[in-house]
Amino acid sequence: MATYGTTGTGMGSGQAQDEHIRETGDLISADKVIGTTVYNAAGDNLGTIHDLMVDKRSGHVAYAVMSFGGFLGIGEKYHPLPWNALTYDDGKGGYNIDLTPEQLRSAPTYSRDELRNFGGERVDTYYGGLGYPPLV
Amino acid sequence: MATYGTTGTGMGSGQAQDEHIRETGDLISADKVIGTTVYNAAGDNLGTIHDLMVDKRSGHVAYAVMSFGGFLGIGEKYHPLPWNALTYDDGKGGYNIDLTPEQLRSAPTYSRDELRNFGGERVDTYYGGLGYPPLV
Repeated sequence: MATYGTTGTGMGSGQAQDEHIRETGDLISADKVIGTTVYNAAGDNLGTIHDLMVDKRSGHVAYAVMSFGGFLGIGEKYHPLPWNALTYDDGKGGYNIDLTPEQLRSAPTYSRDELRNFGGERVDTYYGGLGYPPLV
Repeated sequence: MATYGTTGTGMGSGQAQDEHIRETGDLISADKVIGTTVYNAAGDNLGTIHDLMVDKRSGHVAYAVMSFGGFLGIGEKYHPLPWNALTYDDGKGGYNIDLTPEQLRSAPTYSRDELRNFGGERVDTYYGGLGYPPLV
């Protein structure tokens, strides 16, 4: 995986953060998205983006799979989140998702093995009910 | 980066390939796409997918960035390819792109540093002229 423009420049993390924000006006690379922190409206660190799931036919990023840290005390579980429910926040240097802790606790989660056969239906139903219908 | 379902099973590469093909009917993860081989119609190995570039607004995977191997003798250059120009080939276990060597030689390429400011315009113009207009 590349780290565009971060080799050989000796930049600290603050500058790397600036670089992330500036990177290409309308485009962002999967490499940059993966590993980025996800926050809720209260500013709590919910986890980090672990992978992206692409709809083969439409080419849409359907889901960002968030790996879940300690915030809710669940280990080894992955949250597929609708891509359109995530908003990049320049100030925080991460993605915001406007869900309550209760909404996240009730959301579909998957183990690493379960992700292999992840089809999206449960996620679409759940987040569709919260106002984030699936991208077509 | 995850390797879904490949930990602790002791699978060989042939089985891992089968798994790639089977993975989730309509979805594929960025982690699986990155590193996959790209072939032309003649079956030549053109390179491997190095990263995906996502349009922040639409959520579309706009480009797959192919890192270029020895086929055309160009080193350290990256080819952003329109996502819709790539077709997954089960038999080859990689992506097909229907471009001639001449069309690829003339296509826009970027160094790692140049990719930082990659905006897509040159790529859209070039591949649009070959019948692959940009996704909106």
